Amino acid sequence: MCRFLAYQGEPIFLETLVCASEHSLVHQSLHAAECKTATNGDGFGIGWYGERDIPGLFRDLRPAWSDENLRSVCTQVRSGQFFAHVRAATGTVTSRANCHPFAHGRWMFMHNGQIGGYAQIKRRLEAALPDEFYHARQGTTDSEVLFLLALAEIAKGSPPPEAVAATLGFTKMLMRDASVDEALRFTAALTDGETLYCFRVACDDRPASLYFSEQPGAVTVASEPVDRGGDHWQAVPRGAFITVRRGTATTVAPFPWAAEAVAA
Amino acid sequence: MCRFLAYQGEPIFLETLVCASEHSLVHQSLHAAECKTATNGDGFGIGWYGERDIPGLFRDLRPAWSDENLRSVCTQVRSGQFFAHVRAATGTVTSRANCHPFAHGRWMFMHNGQIGGYAQIKRRLEAALPDEFYHARQGTTDSEVLFLLALAEIAKGSPPPEAVAATLGFTKMLMRDASVDEALRFTAALTDGETLYCFRVACDDRPASLYFSEQPGAVTVASEPVDRGGDHWQAVPRGAFITVRRGTATTVAPFPWAAEAVAA
Amino acid sequence: MCRFLAYQGEPIFLETLVCASEHSLVHQSLHAAECKTATNGDGFGIGWYGERDIPGLFRDLRPAWSDENLRSVCTQVRSGQFFAHVRAATGTVTSRANCHPFAHGRWMFMHNGQIGGYAQIKRRLEAALPDEFYHARQGTTDSEVLFLLALAEIAKGSPPPEAVAATLGFTKMLMRDASVDEALRFTAALTDGETLYCFRVACDDRPASLYFSEQPGAVTVASEPVDRGGDHWQAVPRGAFITVRRGTATTVAPFPWAAEAVAA
Amino acid sequence: MCRFLAYQGEPIFLETLVCASEHSLVHQSLHAAECKTATNGDGFGIGWYGERDIPGLFRDLRPAWSDENLRSVCTQVRSGQFFAHVRAATGTVTSRANCHPFAHGRWMFMHNGQIGGYAQIKRRLEAALPDEFYHARQGTTDSEVLFLLALAEIAKGSPPPEAVAATLGFTKMLMRDASVDEALRFTAALTDGETLYCFRVACDDRPASLYFSEQPGAVTVASEPVDRGGDHWQAVPRGAFITVRRGTATTVAPFPWAAEAVAA
Repeated sequence: MCRFLAYQGEPIFLETLVCASEHSLVHQSLHAAECKTATNGDGFGIGWYGERDIPGLFRDLRPAWSDENLRSVCTQVRSGQFFAHVRAATGTVTSRANCHPFAHGRWMFMHNGQIGGYAQIKRRLEAALPDEFYHARQGTTDSEVLFLLALAEIAKGSPPPEAVAATLGFTKMLMRDASVDEALRFTAALTDGETLYCFRVACDDRPASLYFSEQPGAVTVASEPVDRGGDHWQAVPRGAFITVRRGTATTVAPFPWAAEAVAA
Repeated sequence: MCRFLAYQGEPIFLETLVCASEHSLVHQSLHAAECKTATNGDGFGIGWYGERDIPGLFRDLRPAWSDENLRSVCTQVRSGQFFAHVRAATGTVTSRANCHPFAHGRWMFMHNGQIGGYAQIKRRLEAALPDEFYHARQGTTDSEVLFLLALAEIAKGSPPPEAVAATLGFTKMLMRDASVDEALRFTAALTDGETLYCFRVACDDRPASLYFSEQPGAVTVASEPVDRGGDHWQAVPRGAFITVRRGTATTVAPFPWAAEAVAA
Repeated sequence: MCRFLAYQGEPIFLETLVCASEHSLVHQSLHAAECKTATNGDGFGIGWYGERDIPGLFRDLRPAWSDENLRSVCTQVRSGQFFAHVRAATGTVTSRANCHPFAHGRWMFMHNGQIGGYAQIKRRLEAALPDEFYHARQGTTDSEVLFLLALAEIAKGSPPPEAVAATLGFTKMLMRDASVDEALRFTAALTDGETLYCFRVACDDRPASLYFSEQPGAVTVASEPVDRGGDHWQAVPRGAFITVRRGTATTVAPFPWAAEAVAA
Repeated sequence: MCRFLAYQGEPIFLETLVCASEHSLVHQSLHAAECKTATNGDGFGIGWYGERDIPGLFRDLRPAWSDENLRSVCTQVRSGQFFAHVRAATGTVTSRANCHPFAHGRWMFMHNGQIGGYAQIKRRLEAALPDEFYHARQGTTDSEVLFLLALAEIAKGSPPPEAVAATLGFTKMLMRDASVDEALRFTAALTDGETLYCFRVACDDRPASLYFSEQPGAVTVASEPVDRGGDHWQAVPRGAFITVRRGTATTVAPFPWAAEAVAA
């Protein structure tokens, strides 16, 4: 399991949410409260949109809680759209390319979950990547494959939520073919720098936690509320996704599983 | 706080105690049970005596629990005298030179504890190092200074326990001069490759935990027993140190605080 | 390009060849003389056989020339069969899993060369890996794929040189299909811990340099002689491979390209 | 030896000088032309002023040429006052705290040079640091001590060039006392975020190279010109320092060695 946060709103220093708040993401790296492992020390990453078309990425292997570079970059960089993630590895090696968020072109993605029986379906999942996205793969995680598969659907014209639904539906089909009993759990965030989609779904209805806070000029989404006692946080419902877009109220909608996948 | 273990006996693969046992040191790096912080993820180190006069050292910054190099080296290397340590940093930066164990010539040392008010006495403590040991300093931790001060005493002819006592007595004096209220706590291991000394002392009588197990051909000392349910572990008494030497039964003795220091 | 060395003979400390000699591999990491880039600073690795069935691996990202862990491990570990490699990356990310040598079971491999147009054939090359070896892949280099493809051939019963020839023949075929103009160059070492095979081949007859020295109880193979002025080094001929086996004189033989591949 | 650059002018993306130009600092990390070692692979650092009172710092151990974080941060961050440095270590360990630039409060410093016989005077040099600056020390390099000594002089009221001159004069005196024959060489940059001072001095008149380019809205200072063929670069004279301040023409002046130090 991992912990993450996503922000969209008035530009703020990343440190506000990543390092400084009471239960900031850095605090969650050592003291996560709502997941099986309190420690998320297998690398971290931040990704942010600034003046460029593509996001900046800073990912490293050390625990977030003691990384002076992370702290300094977060103190200096201000952004109106950013992601941050602390990782608890589940099998794949600790390398920068395996740290979240992942970026491709202007898109960015991060994930907290699992593909049950991944070893049994990895090969078919990777084979499903169109050439462009096969070559774009830099690490070896399941999360990066899901991201690239979704991008391939988007490139074909699907709206992002449907692209993600198609990706998860396909993944579930492979899992069924391989007689995998373990669950597919997908709590994740995806953005093109303008619209932010955050998902909280699982085929066993036990997705990892996800909350959001909507305040004037600032929507924050996080695995766990970054301040305590704030009643401005609400849970993203299980089986739902939210859409965050500037100038529009955040919407909550059921995740568009294809009927076939839901039936499964 | 940190966790550590020391071994003296028939040569065994380091993995036996470092990685493989039920509550191995690697397990303690993520799930320490007897200290304030369960996570000891700010680097690790192993030091071992083989065919050379000086010990080998392998220290790195990543958490021990996911380090494939640590695992592989521990699988291959066999030694009859070794140390292993996982670190939870308390202020100084995470760097290899700040990871335990420390080595100088044939001596090796590791520490789990604190010098209360270190910032206030650091300067005087470092100034007390004779030239040879001042130059030998590679990192910036308080632990390394204590090690080098004790070596300086040993170089003058003191038996190691008295050298350590003189070092801690001097440290306490500086703390008193600086009106430091916090405690000096010193749970540590020191060896020249032949005799192993392990200390468990604190000026507030709350030293970090330390256990030892004496079995035929194998003495193991550890912050926490590395297997559970074993009744062969006994606590090192507070205010005591043990001496482990080949062919001799392990002895437990009161730590030889100088009267002046004890009075303090 | 990279630099590497392989040793088989009486057990010696790794430092003898890796760190201590006049033009040791660590020296070559900063001052390589016979390749385009003098600097091989994108990680390093050592792999050695000791008392276990599988080799030990120690690979890291920092330049070899300043890595104190490498130096200490090489000072302590003695082996009669080991590999060492310093890397100059050519496109793939710097990560431990991309450092040579690679190990799988009791086999170990390292490579200095290139697959021309790798991006264009990567997908088909990886798809050719049988399941067991597809899952064994840990990094993202072309070298690791070649290793695993050769192991798959060996698993089918091929002698190692023929397995390597089949792998390279297949790779050349894919390159031809993809109209790749760049060369396939393969200077490499492969061992199961008992027999050592070292290859120096390229489809454009410009393979990277490779030398060997056969002395009583010690065969050393290296990208560049590790001592200078020694007349005991001879070049491995282009298009040849050598076989090093205990109790047998080293043999030099033409690389068994399949006729089809040679014609290409 | 090392290579560095400093910029003051209209805010530009750091990548312009650090990564993108023909002979950018990243290029110099692998192909330095005007120093003994072409390779500067022992870590790197950037420091920049943005919206905060204190500069941001990002320093890491890997070679600059392959660091994806460095590249991404430099692509996103825009600053009108920044430093960048690539290190070739000369004795001290490779750690983040030993990488340049160093920062303290709003001050920032980087150095390319050497204190001859440093081991012989280190102790007296460090002892000369007032408490505040003694405690601020985070690494173990000679460069950081010079920086902190100069800051201590500035804190007493000295203008920065005089503070640096006093520091170097004192250092030279210690070297003379210790009968050091080797040279003191100091090519360095110091700034408080507003005024930039760059020094090129050595007691043997062989300081490391330093150039500057003054163009409308942009002053760049660099160990080696970052573009080739540009005739807008001029060497900083030996024994001189330059002062760069917004809205004022850059001035070149003789370094204010104290008479005593010059006489030496």
